[in-house]
Amino acid sequence: MASPLDICVVGSVALDDVETPAGKADNAVGGAAVYFSLSASYFTKVRLVGVAGRDFPRQTIALLRKRKVDLEGLDITSGSTFRWRGSYLKDLNQAETLQTELNVFETFQPKLPESYRDAKIVFLANINPELQLDVLRQVRSPRFVAMDTMNLWIDIARPTLEKALKKVDLICINEGEARQLSGESQLPLAAQRILKMGPGAVVIKRGEYGANLFTKDRTFFAQPAYPLEIVRDPTGAGDSFAGGLIGSLAKERSFSDAALKRALVWGSVMGSFVVEQFSIGGTARIPPAKLRRRFADFARFTRL
Amino acid sequence: MASPLDICVVGSVALDDVETPAGKADNAVGGAAVYFSLSASYFTKVRLVGVAGRDFPRQTIALLRKRKVDLEGLDITSGSTFRWRGSYLKDLNQAETLQTELNVFETFQPKLPESYRDAKIVFLANINPELQLDVLRQVRSPRFVAMDTMNLWIDIARPTLEKALKKVDLICINEGEARQLSGESQLPLAAQRILKMGPGAVVIKRGEYGANLFTKDRTFFAQPAYPLEIVRDPTGAGDSFAGGLIGSLAKERSFSDAALKRALVWGSVMGSFVVEQFSIGGTARIPPAKLRRRFADFARFTRL
Repeated sequence: MASPLDICVVGSVALDDVETPAGKADNAVGGAAVYFSLSASYFTKVRLVGVAGRDFPRQTIALLRKRKVDLEGLDITSGSTFRWRGSYLKDLNQAETLQTELNVFETFQPKLPESYRDAKIVFLANINPELQLDVLRQVRSPRFVAMDTMNLWIDIARPTLEKALKKVDLICINEGEARQLSGESQLPLAAQRILKMGPGAVVIKRGEYGANLFTKDRTFFAQPAYPLEIVRDPTGAGDSFAGGLIGSLAKERSFSDAALKRALVWGSVMGSFVVEQFSIGGTARIPPAKLRRRFADFARFTRL
Repeated sequence: MASPLDICVVGSVALDDVETPAGKADNAVGGAAVYFSLSASYFTKVRLVGVAGRDFPRQTIALLRKRKVDLEGLDITSGSTFRWRGSYLKDLNQAETLQTELNVFETFQPKLPESYRDAKIVFLANINPELQLDVLRQVRSPRFVAMDTMNLWIDIARPTLEKALKKVDLICINEGEARQLSGESQLPLAAQRILKMGPGAVVIKRGEYGANLFTKDRTFFAQPAYPLEIVRDPTGAGDSFAGGLIGSLAKERSFSDAALKRALVWGSVMGSFVVEQFSIGGTARIPPAKLRRRFADFARFTRL
């Protein structure tokens, strides 16, 4: 089998204080780029672009290295790591942001090391679309580009966001963002509207309801979420999902609708693992047999 | 092939005034027993037990007869039909009840005609659990009993509801009701708790997110909803879903987990048709080829 394509991911690196009905975690490692990298590392080589302060835990750096994540693009600089304080006490499906301290993330200007510029797959996690475009100017000839975004950028930076959308192959967003971005409440119409903005595939994350795939070739695929008995911490679910999704595409070296369907299942597998533990506890080390077993479970959940 | 098992359904017969983002319908035929009967009539013989006033439209009676629904148990009496006025303007997933007039339904005492007492399948649509139990006392030896209920009965008649639960093989309720009935917020735990109350299978309706099946043999099956571009009127979705679900079991003469999975798809098929039109417009006459095509669509939506 040909070796998997490598992925360059750019996004946040964070320390989170999180409260959920299952408990709380202070000073817990988080950030989209971290969640994504760990998750995708089960599929291929990941090259991380981000910034952290000197307070970022060495054990996490060691863990990422052990999982073969390339950290040449992780700028560790003087100052504090981006901090997010959030609560899921009111609604396990929707984080309530209590506080955000940008810290070193405030002046983040992604700079790709030379070795990253030939990455074949790029994942633009949720950051200012201006920076997403900036990253795309630095990669040479990616075969596949995917992005995430959030309500904030749809609100305050729509023109730039739409410019980015024209340059990507896939967008992976949650249900509310899909509705907001498209102005359509019925998801199939929302997806059609977004497909017209550029990407050939739209992946819509629906939390405990699973995920949907809509492609320009009119494929619709629906994937339920894992029927978990306990969700300890939903933080990072979407980024871990994206890591499984993009990781699977990288491993298959295919972006066909059939590959996208399998990727949606792998996304769901990784999302299901991460929410079972606080922070990155659920995806730090997963035995291969456990990964395969959960994929098989997912396939069974919809098989007639 | 052996002939399908017949179904006896008891539930409301109504005239509804409904507002949705797609428009409004006044004096529109509705009621759980009507939606269920029409939907299940595509699979087997249905015997309806209910009460209507003399204002109930003759064309609907004619339509039900044409679809071979047995109306011997439909009591048409002096007075007005049960009326419900509701709005989906705020939330397409959640009806807001604006007004209810019980009328002839207020003193409804289900009385099964002699010819109904040998029905092999019984569906107890959402009515007072006291009446549901009363119906069960009138049937001789049903092979399969299924029930629906609502938040009101969980609130005010839990002991009676729990008595009914002990006597049924399947409960088909929506997500919020499952959580309320079980006191569990995670659906798998909610389902486990309800399975312990009696039924061997729990079907949880999740509206635009599809439906889930949990059985005592630890089967979990998830079915997405049809990706509809327009939902004109969600009224009757749950009862039409139940009609497809129970109808399919009746046609297969099987209540195995495998049969239940297929039934969940047929429920989704019928639910998807009914919401495309106001009132019973979506299920009044569906060509067989269209039914088969939609079932095939559903199977494709989750096939890897």
